[in-house]
Parts: sequence; structure tokens; C-alpha cells
Amino acid sequence: MKVIPIKTPNKDMTITIVGLGVIGGSFAMSLQEAGYHNIYGIDIDQNTLDKAKAQRIIKEGYTDGKTILPTSDLVIFSLYPRLVHDFIVNHRTFFKDGSILTDATGVKKFFIADIMEVLPNSIDFIFGHPMAGREKRGIDFASSSVYKGANYILTPIPSNKKENLDFMESLIMEMGFGRITRISADYHDELIAFTSQLPHAIAVSLVNSDVEGRETGKFTGDSYRELTRIANINEDLWSELFLENKEPLLKSIQQFEDQLDLIKNAIKTDDSAALKELFIKSTKRREQLDK
Amino acid sequence: MKVIPIKTPNKDMTITIVGLGVIGGSFAMSLQEAGYHNIYGIDIDQNTLDKAKAQRIIKEGYTDGKTILPTSDLVIFSLYPRLVHDFIVNHRTFFKDGSILTDATGVKKFFIADIMEVLPNSIDFIFGHPMAGREKRGIDFASSSVYKGANYILTPIPSNKKENLDFMESLIMEMGFGRITRISADYHDELIAFTSQLPHAIAVSLVNSDVEGRETGKFTGDSYRELTRIANINEDLWSELFLENKEPLLKSIQQFEDQLDLIKNAIKTDDSAALKELFIKSTKRREQLDK
Repeated sequence: MKVIPIKTPNKDMTITIVGLGVIGGSFAMSLQEAGYHNIYGIDIDQNTLDKAKAQRIIKEGYTDGKTILPTSDLVIFSLYPRLVHDFIVNHRTFFKDGSILTDATGVKKFFIADIMEVLPNSIDFIFGHPMAGREKRGIDFASSSVYKGANYILTPIPSNKKENLDFMESLIMEMGFGRITRISADYHDELIAFTSQLPHAIAVSLVNSDVEGRETGKFTGDSYRELTRIANINEDLWSELFLENKEPLLKSIQQFEDQLDLIKNAIKTDDSAALKELFIKSTKRREQLDK
Repeated sequence: MKVIPIKTPNKDMTITIVGLGVIGGSFAMSLQEAGYHNIYGIDIDQNTLDKAKAQRIIKEGYTDGKTILPTSDLVIFSLYPRLVHDFIVNHRTFFKDGSILTDATGVKKFFIADIMEVLPNSIDFIFGHPMAGREKRGIDFASSSVYKGANYILTPIPSNKKENLDFMESLIMEMGFGRITRISADYHDELIAFTSQLPHAIAVSLVNSDVEGRETGKFTGDSYRELTRIANINEDLWSELFLENKEPLLKSIQQFEDQLDLIKNAIKTDDSAALKELFIKSTKRREQLDK
């Protein structure tokens, strides 16, 4: 028997976004474009709320959740991981029974454990991670285009209702994302350590290894600029993400260093054949990625 | 007294490009767009020559230089470094007296020494490096747009005539490049080890450190794709470039690894303050690069 979802995305539903930075603002824009119009915002910064309202991406803004949470069907958190926990603790009694919460957090195992300790029973938290962002912060850099065609990961937990997971998938597709994959929190963290955190660690290290005072900009091609774009990084967010995904990230860094050692040793020993083999391997793998 | 250049770029001059791959083809296109119409090509691949002629980016193609070199005012080499040396040895007697040769080679100290051993006295070789390329190879991927606004480095040697250096600069600007800098071969190699070779070593290592068989493509954002674009790499060319710039490249890799170690240690010791400091530094430096 096919389960008929109780809840399907409904353009009149009330959606509240907590944290109207670059990610939250992009959610608001994408939802507006998808036809949702009852979108509200919560942010500690009144100026951000005013901007979002003036841009008509939210209907109304609040500096806490006491007014709007009791009627919100869906709450989307786009806050630093630790702040989501604190927000839930402070608003435990205000959430609407049966409402769905979701997030955009880049680490999952640690985060889920942290949230589940304080989540009221009547609330279903669907944990997710849109694989798209910008290196800039703040609502001024929000854009719906960044989500178009992008990957989205959901990390279901046993208590998630099937219809709520399906609901989230529908909504995500309506926002223009290209692909949704459901995986475990552990696997998410292992993958993200490799595809997102390691690239950030590399970009930061590359820029920081430059010789001070050299006019590097005069001697760069596209490759250096591309490899270092994300060295422009939100230090508060990413220090949290790195430390909350310690083991998988350290493992990814190690595996990367092992590969770099192969190149280093091939150079040291003038081993042209070994270099070519590494280059042929990376070329094949990179071509595969675009397929 | 101002020196009046003897030779200025002249749209009727004969320019011969040796090696019509992605770089040589892009030179031909850029020169055509700049109004030069006496452009000839030399390539070992007749098919490439036929394509270039059909696309009207060269007037005629040859599989060796014996016919066209005696009337060529400028010869541009876009070959693997070692092949330039061999080409000059094989064509020593065919170059036009007073003609200019130039190149697009990514290493300079080793290359210049190699060439100067065999260069006839009557020829002026202006060594250069356009800081732009594509990860694909072959004339099919040639394009003039890749050069627009890009950096160009010239590494003059004592025997270069001033008017020939000035001529090359004029021609480079006419092709649409954004900035030309004159530096020593040693400094070029040190800078390029950092801004070009190290990024390639990193991209290759990042892709090769992926776990075999994982569907990584489902879990990537822009950062992974950007950091690995150049892992699609010409193994013959880049193994040569790496080995001909051994010491500067090994030094750059070491300095990068030292920075990555700082991140690793901060993660291991849960040192959030140290991480933030590294991120703030990289953010400032990256913002500076775009100015």
C-alpha cells in the first residue's frame, strides 16, 4: 500500500527562517520564487530584518521567535551550529505541535546529538545540508541562483516521519536544487570532510603559505584564484565546523598529504613516470566527476 | 634621449606559430583578432594544420619550418620545453636574420639556459609566459577569450634588444592581455612554483586522495569542483615543468605543508582561537588579491 503523504508543500504554509545571513536569505529568495509567500524571518540584527522586509523576501521580521513560532509550519535554521541548540532551548514551548524544523548545517553527527537532547517530542527535525554557499557573509550576498542545480543532502534519523522527509524533498526540488541524496550522519560527515572541509583547509593554507609582501596578484592565472576563492572564509562558522568534525577531517587531511608526498617524492627522485601516472589518475577521476 | 623603437608591431609582418595546440591556437586567434593576417603554423600533426587553416586562423600550415622560417619576423613557440630546443637545433640555418623568437613556457631558468646554448647570434629570443591556459589540450579548445585581461610575464636576458622587448609588449597588449611584468628568470620560477605549479600539485593530490568507488559527485559543492578543475592535467607537459623547476616547487610544497600542519594541530588540540587566526589571515590576503 502506498503511503499518502499527510503534508504536501502548500504555498500558504507559514515558513520561518531563523538567521537571515547569506544562507537564510538565499532560502527566503528561493522560496519566494517557488511561490511561497508566508515567509517570516528571525534575526538578532534589526537592520538585516529591515532589509529583508524591504526586499520583500520576508513578510515580517522578529528578533525572537515568540510571536511567529506558534503558527510556523516549517522552521529553517541557518545559524552557526551551536546557536541552533541555544535557540531551541530558549523557545522550547513556542514551537507549533507537529511542525517541521530543518537546518543547513555543514556537520551532522555532533549537531544531531546536540539537538536531539533538547528537541520537544512533538517536533520533527529533518536534518539537511544544501551543498552550496558563497564565500561572503550577510544578507547582501544572498541569491537564489546559488542553489539552482546544486546538491542537497538529507540525513534522516529513525524518528523522522516518512511524510515529513518526502515533504522536505518536494520543497527542496521546488527551490531549484538539482539532486537530493539521503545518507547517514556518519557518512555525511566523512564525505563533507573530504569534499568541503578539506578544500577549505587547503585554500587557507595555500594563501597563508605565500611569501609576505610579494605582489602575487601580478603573477597569478585562473588556477591560483580558483583554488583560493574559499580562503575568504567565515572564521566563526568554519572553526566550529572543523572542530565538530575533527576525526573525519584529520583523516581526510592525512590522505591528501599522503598523495602530495607521492608527488614530492617523484620530484625529488626525478621520477617522471611516477608523476605521469599520478596525473593520468587525477585526469581520469576529474573527468568522471563531470559525467 | 628617447630611444625610438626600430621595430613596431606591423599588421603585415609574418608571424609563425610553432605548435598549434590549445596555447598556440589561442595565440593565432588573438593575433587574427588584433588584425594580423600573415600568420603561419607549424605542427607535426597535419590534421591540426588543416583545422587551423579551415578556421582561417593561419594562412598556411607546415610540418617543418624550412619553407616559412626564412621570411618569418616573429616565431612563437608553444611546444613542450624540450621540443623548443630540438626545433632550434634542427632549424638553426633557417631563421631570418634579426627575427624575434618567443615562447610560452611555464619554467624559465632551466629553459633559457637550454635554449641559449643553441641559439644563433643573429636571433633575439624574448622569453615570456602568458599566465592563462585551459585544462584541455589541442586546437579544438583554443580560444582568444582566455587571454583577455590575463597576466603576462617577460623574463628579459642581457642580450635582448630593448626595441624587441618593447615590440613584444605592444603585441601582447594588442592581443588583449591585461598586465605585463618584467622579472628575472629566477624570480619567475619561484613565483610560478607557488602560483601555478603548487596549485596543480594540490589539485591532483586532492582528487587522488578520494576514496575509490565513492559517488563523490553527489556530494560536492562549488569548492571541490573549483579546486580540482586543474587535476585534469596534461601529464607530458606538467611532468616536464615540475622536474625542470624542482627546487622552487619543493620549497613551495613545503611552505604549504607547514601551513596545513598549523590547521591540523589546531584541530587536534581543539584550538579554536588558532584556527580563527589562520582564517582571518587568509581572508585578508585573499581580499587583497582581488584589489
